[in-house]
Amino acid sequence: MYRTHTCGELRLSDNNKKVTLSGWVQKIRDKGSMIWIDLRDRYGVTQLIFEESKTSAEVFNKARELGREFVIQASGKVIERESKNPKMSTGEIEILVDELNILNKAATPPFTIEDKSDGGEEIRMQYRYLDLRREPLKQNLILRHKIAIEVRKYLDSQHFMEIETPYLIKSTPEGARDFVVPSRMNAGQFYALPQSPQTFKQLLMVAGYDKYFQIVRCFRDEDLRADRQPEFTQIDCEMSYVEQEDILNMFEGLAKHLFMAVKGVDIGTFKRMTYDEAMKYYGSDKPDIRFEMKFIELNELVKGKEFKVFDDAELVVGICAEGCSEYTRKQLDELTNFVKRPQVGANGLVYVKYNLDGTLKSSVDKFYSETELKKWAEVFQAKKGDLILVLAGNKEKTQKALNELRLEMGNQLGLRDSKKYAPLWVVNFPMFEWDEDTKRFYAKHHPFTSPVAEDIDKLDTDTANVMANAYDMVINGVEIGGGSIRIHNDSLQQKIFKTLGFTDEEAKEQFGFLLDAFKYGAPPHGGLALGFDRLCAMFGGTDSIRDYIAFPKNNSGRDVMINSPSNISKAQLDELNILLKK
Amino acid sequence: MYRTHTCGELRLSDNNKKVTLSGWVQKIRDKGSMIWIDLRDRYGVTQLIFEESKTSAEVFNKARELGREFVIQASGKVIERESKNPKMSTGEIEILVDELNILNKAATPPFTIEDKSDGGEEIRMQYRYLDLRREPLKQNLILRHKIAIEVRKYLDSQHFMEIETPYLIKSTPEGARDFVVPSRMNAGQFYALPQSPQTFKQLLMVAGYDKYFQIVRCFRDEDLRADRQPEFTQIDCEMSYVEQEDILNMFEGLAKHLFMAVKGVDIGTFKRMTYDEAMKYYGSDKPDIRFEMKFIELNELVKGKEFKVFDDAELVVGICAEGCSEYTRKQLDELTNFVKRPQVGANGLVYVKYNLDGTLKSSVDKFYSETELKKWAEVFQAKKGDLILVLAGNKEKTQKALNELRLEMGNQLGLRDSKKYAPLWVVNFPMFEWDEDTKRFYAKHHPFTSPVAEDIDKLDTDTANVMANAYDMVINGVEIGGGSIRIHNDSLQQKIFKTLGFTDEEAKEQFGFLLDAFKYGAPPHGGLALGFDRLCAMFGGTDSIRDYIAFPKNNSGRDVMINSPSNISKAQLDELNILLKK
Repeated sequence: MYRTHTCGELRLSDNNKKVTLSGWVQKIRDKGSMIWIDLRDRYGVTQLIFEESKTSAEVFNKARELGREFVIQASGKVIERESKNPKMSTGEIEILVDELNILNKAATPPFTIEDKSDGGEEIRMQYRYLDLRREPLKQNLILRHKIAIEVRKYLDSQHFMEIETPYLIKSTPEGARDFVVPSRMNAGQFYALPQSPQTFKQLLMVAGYDKYFQIVRCFRDEDLRADRQPEFTQIDCEMSYVEQEDILNMFEGLAKHLFMAVKGVDIGTFKRMTYDEAMKYYGSDKPDIRFEMKFIELNELVKGKEFKVFDDAELVVGICAEGCSEYTRKQLDELTNFVKRPQVGANGLVYVKYNLDGTLKSSVDKFYSETELKKWAEVFQAKKGDLILVLAGNKEKTQKALNELRLEMGNQLGLRDSKKYAPLWVVNFPMFEWDEDTKRFYAKHHPFTSPVAEDIDKLDTDTANVMANAYDMVINGVEIGGGSIRIHNDSLQQKIFKTLGFTDEEAKEQFGFLLDAFKYGAPPHGGLALGFDRLCAMFGGTDSIRDYIAFPKNNSGRDVMINSPSNISKAQLDELNILLKK
Repeated sequence: MYRTHTCGELRLSDNNKKVTLSGWVQKIRDKGSMIWIDLRDRYGVTQLIFEESKTSAEVFNKARELGREFVIQASGKVIERESKNPKMSTGEIEILVDELNILNKAATPPFTIEDKSDGGEEIRMQYRYLDLRREPLKQNLILRHKIAIEVRKYLDSQHFMEIETPYLIKSTPEGARDFVVPSRMNAGQFYALPQSPQTFKQLLMVAGYDKYFQIVRCFRDEDLRADRQPEFTQIDCEMSYVEQEDILNMFEGLAKHLFMAVKGVDIGTFKRMTYDEAMKYYGSDKPDIRFEMKFIELNELVKGKEFKVFDDAELVVGICAEGCSEYTRKQLDELTNFVKRPQVGANGLVYVKYNLDGTLKSSVDKFYSETELKKWAEVFQAKKGDLILVLAGNKEKTQKALNELRLEMGNQLGLRDSKKYAPLWVVNFPMFEWDEDTKRFYAKHHPFTSPVAEDIDKLDTDTANVMANAYDMVINGVEIGGGSIRIHNDSLQQKIFKTLGFTDEEAKEQFGFLLDAFKYGAPPHGGLALGFDRLCAMFGGTDSIRDYIAFPKNNSGRDVMINSPSNISKAQLDELNILLKK
């Protein structure tokens, strides 16, 4: 037996017990006649003590040979520490070691195994198995495990069945790029890895399974942004005989359960907002509503006063930052630079200070009198001491830029407390997006999303304004997931395919099995998928999903630890009936 | 709201309630003035009744339009049935319908949706979503869900963490064939899909995670036998600071928990048997020990009596079938034919009948006297009325053939009761298998398996006889899973790679990350993997894993429902930098 206890469990009540621990050498303090070693395992750290006067020479000398991250087994007696460490759960005791066994030596790690490591991103990715020894990453994976357990507990209690769908499926050109897998047994043909189990979960509804879920890997061969991974995990769900309201209630219940079970937090009832409202008041389809600071449109108020920037603008819109009238020139310049950054994209920033003495001072005093500025202050319901910030230009770009500015002001004012949660359903998304390059409509959600019932008549006549029966779960400005009521009627599905530019043949070739299935008694159904990596990051209070994945890939889609992707042999290529392009 | 209740929950105590149900039309009986409809959903079947005298003409006529598998919503009053059906949980009531809504029509399904369908395998695979409507398949998937829930419950309670490992990994030529995935961003390079998360779970042990598990998809591009799938699911587990005994106890605990929680069966303590014993007494490394009928070796007893078949044989070995001495000529001929089938591979069968009157009669009376046959009977501890069956030839082939015969006799004698469970650990497997074609050793388990400590010295001198610290879980003759204590020392790992014919460069290229990891403090560790599909089939009491997978592939690795694999576009091939071979 390698151990009688873990390194996290011994207490003063275990005093005098003879114990055996195994673990990694975290820290060594050698004071000549005494050596202390912090021994670490998954469960904690326990201090070992070797005293020259009490320990055999053999054991004492062996202790002196140890280095950081050596794997050892130590036996001895639990004793009370002279100087206790109240920060450690095992801090009242130490082990007076009388037997020591080196289970494995360790080379000096290329970076320190501490909460804050001295290793850069790259070297830590290469030695991920060492990085994973660090407490913060360990806590992240423990959190992930816990959330998965609670997701299953809740959905099982609601009679959902977890059903595994295939990973070797079929490539479809709609949506993001597929990873494909050449078939050896079917020369020249390919499987694809699923971007989501969408069609399979719908087939499970046709098959009568009623409430399905799966915590499932999905794959997208996209150019990677900082926060994207080629493989990621979804909590994928689908229900039959439901309307939107049933689904929102069910998964609001899931989110509430998770926050309560994992964090002990009651996040309250989810707000609801339409996509149009979200764009109008927050310039984003995933607004952070932990704070107000809503957009106010100024078009009517500000036009026709010879200020060309506003006169030419499609949209003039602003926010009111409470208590910021004392912002200095420097602070205002910084905000102007912030909105002009290419990622934000505004041309400039107009401000109005509603000073504490009741006067108004703006960057556009030349064009607007104090009486006029007073009217601005009124529409913003600004108080003395507030600062009004206004952007102008093309509608979409200006909304996007003001959204960024609003979030920045939220940060500056400490309104985005990571311990506060403001959950929200955004509903009624547009069904289609027009793409100028290809001159066709794309599905904003996916081609299986149902339009809202009252818009079905508009499909031919007013396509751009058809609303989808779709919804997103947004918490603190992060899109945790989304879904929709699906089409369950083959002729409506065919009509949507046509609107998306599919020929009948293409629709049949790619989704014939689904259209067929709809002919044999498909029930009304809908569902949603939550991004599991992102959900974990949100629970952990950070943005980086990579820190919640045991073995992530880098921005080029490489696993630098195992050095993959890699070359394969000529024999393998031959068997698969493929050649590399020169 | 589509329903107030499911089709499985209404009882006589709900009498007079106004309810709404939704589901599929299972059966229609139209008696002119009365129509009965069995309405089905995932939860059960409820009878609807339409009476011409009580139902509105509109609803009554609509009911007449319905066909099998139509999706409907029906509202009405729960009433007590005149003729109750005690076989149905809802059999005491029916719904007198006053509102009927056709949610979706259905074409006539290509086969009947009944426990025993009239559809052949092929058509049922093509319309898998209809086949999945059948009760037996539904029960299989419910069982699968339940087992997965209980696996996680047990392992979580034992402090295992479920950690997801990547699906896009690296191809290694050792072992079975990999599925590969061309990388677009890394031209000419490939990911591979994992045959198991073996190296990753070992890295998690190096990372200190101590107790890992994952219910995880694995992939093998092998020529498919009846009971193999290109993608299959494993319960994959690993532990640190453990010896074989710790692992056997832990997973014996898991199996006992599952049988108790899912089937309410106490399967008792697992027997233990070495690989050598299993081969000697059962001719199989996965013996079915629900019944004895052990092999008895006869070499010493039977040689040198002029019977050339025995004299030339490497092994003469038999079993004693209790109470079969009255087998007819025809039955014995059938047994002879059975062992001569190519799948079994024996050249012939020798029998000795120990007749009820105490006489002995054999097919080799010419060579062996009754006194000699009496001695045979003694070594078999045969009683009057028993039948001794003997095979001879090359050791390995004969063991294999007699194993098949033993199982067949077990079937004939009703000794293989699918409700009885005989669990077993087979331990001490050989480390290597010699391959005559390539003139090299292959790992019988995998290259990361540790030899038993006392055989490490034999690696160079007596390679073929080195035993592995490996174990298989076998229940009723089915290998449910297996595992091993792993190597955690880089020099021993390198030595094993060398024994398996790897050059140092190859070892470094393919497994350098693991050898590196072993340098930074790898703990002693080991684990196992259980075949989840097979485990489910065993719990379901059948052999076919395909019936426990929602969307399986056929024997050519095709999903005939979605018609995959399929062709991909030239543009996709171009992006991936590959060409098809003409």
